Amino acid sequence: MPRYRLLIEYDGGPFVGWQRQSNGPSVQQALEDAAERLTPSRPSGQPVRLHAAGRTDAGVHALGMVAHVDLPRDMPDGKLADALNALVRPAPIAVLDSRVVTDAFHARFTCVERRYLYRILTRRAAPALDRGRVWWVPRDLDAQAMHHAAQELVGHHDFSSFRAAECQADSPVKTLDALDVTRVGDEVHVSTRARSFLHHQVRNMVGTLALVGEGKWTARDVRHALQARDRAAAGPTAPADGLYFLAARYPDDQIPNDQMGV
Amino acid sequence: MPRYRLLIEYDGGPFVGWQRQSNGPSVQQALEDAAERLTPSRPSGQPVRLHAAGRTDAGVHALGMVAHVDLPRDMPDGKLADALNALVRPAPIAVLDSRVVTDAFHARFTCVERRYLYRILTRRAAPALDRGRVWWVPRDLDAQAMHHAAQELVGHHDFSSFRAAECQADSPVKTLDALDVTRVGDEVHVSTRARSFLHHQVRNMVGTLALVGEGKWTARDVRHALQARDRAAAGPTAPADGLYFLAARYPDDQIPNDQMGV
Repeated sequence: MPRYRLLIEYDGGPFVGWQRQSNGPSVQQALEDAAERLTPSRPSGQPVRLHAAGRTDAGVHALGMVAHVDLPRDMPDGKLADALNALVRPAPIAVLDSRVVTDAFHARFTCVERRYLYRILTRRAAPALDRGRVWWVPRDLDAQAMHHAAQELVGHHDFSSFRAAECQADSPVKTLDALDVTRVGDEVHVSTRARSFLHHQVRNMVGTLALVGEGKWTARDVRHALQARDRAAAGPTAPADGLYFLAARYPDDQIPNDQMGV
Repeated sequence: MPRYRLLIEYDGGPFVGWQRQSNGPSVQQALEDAAERLTPSRPSGQPVRLHAAGRTDAGVHALGMVAHVDLPRDMPDGKLADALNALVRPAPIAVLDSRVVTDAFHARFTCVERRYLYRILTRRAAPALDRGRVWWVPRDLDAQAMHHAAQELVGHHDFSSFRAAECQADSPVKTLDALDVTRVGDEVHVSTRARSFLHHQVRNMVGTLALVGEGKWTARDVRHALQARDRAAAGPTAPADGLYFLAARYPDDQIPNDQMGV
């Protein structure tokens, strides 16, 4: 049964998140339902299962999510994407690419790098065009100070202070490879990459850096929050709206799957 | 009565257009209703009237529309914007700035330059995140050929071939100052500026240039379409979704009100 690697864009707004849940529509369910309709000859009782590089929360978007699926049907590169797109409508999900990979590929377990972008709109007026797509902070934020403080978090650390209570990771120790803060017009962009992240880690880091941007915290406060290994020591969780899963990278990838787009 | 200059962003999706119409909600009506609620002491029977630099069609967005309004109430710079934003919710309209100007200022009649951006998404998969914000063309377009052909339209011409039947302008002769086509990732952006445009002129120029991008038309075909002075000689009207009113400039503006943002 061929295995397909999928590249997926979605608007997280109408979903309970990537993962299938009983309390509402998920991206995973929408795509699995479409894939099941594509393969009616599948042994009965054997559901189609998608595995993704990241299980984004409710309201979190993706510009370049990677997932894989095994299907009892041979389709040339790109054709599965077209077929899924036709079936998944009108859900705001777009499969940008599909290609056959070996069984050694696993979207979640063989992923070596995940990238996220977080967009903060810093102006007095709420967003009209980007509602639900940015975190609206109606104050000025000092992006340079945020970038400076962010470097306290880069490296190999115990990230317990930035970990959601529900996080199921075995260990709070992770290596954060990059955390960059830049100003882009009236937005502040936080870009980050790591092999993996704890639950809510990006949103908790952003919520903490926003305190620095407002001048309430210093880089030293961020260091102390990290050292405390206590969620209560760090800043609040930034809302889901501004978060985008940008890209996932795998050992054999020649060029990083770099989906900027914003 | 002080006159206020407003800078406005809106999502054109839910509106019948800028202009007040009987068949649905308009941006003008939403803002006029908000302004009337702000000034209850107004002489009765005297409605508040907003005048805009451009009367965008249904579905057309704005990142930097300029309008003016006379109100019997003194408010410091920015305060009118805050008050209108509080009252206009939940409509996707954001007043980005408000400042007192002299009565010599008229958003429509003293405007010396208008700028538009048109976004075309050129990929196989429909947009998930930018639905209603781009024209989706599921084919590759040659942006360089489009830019080359676009130069045929720059200058002082009779634009009858690119004018909607309902256009109320006195003359079809206009001076197009710039029409630039660039590739930005998987999008093609068409940027244009002129003192004024005919009804549907930008969308008709974009629809025509798309024929060039697909290789169906050459720059020479565009020149002949212009020379024909006949709407039937040019390409189709591109959809409203991809069009953004970017900025309006006035004689006293020190710095062009350049709202790129995309």
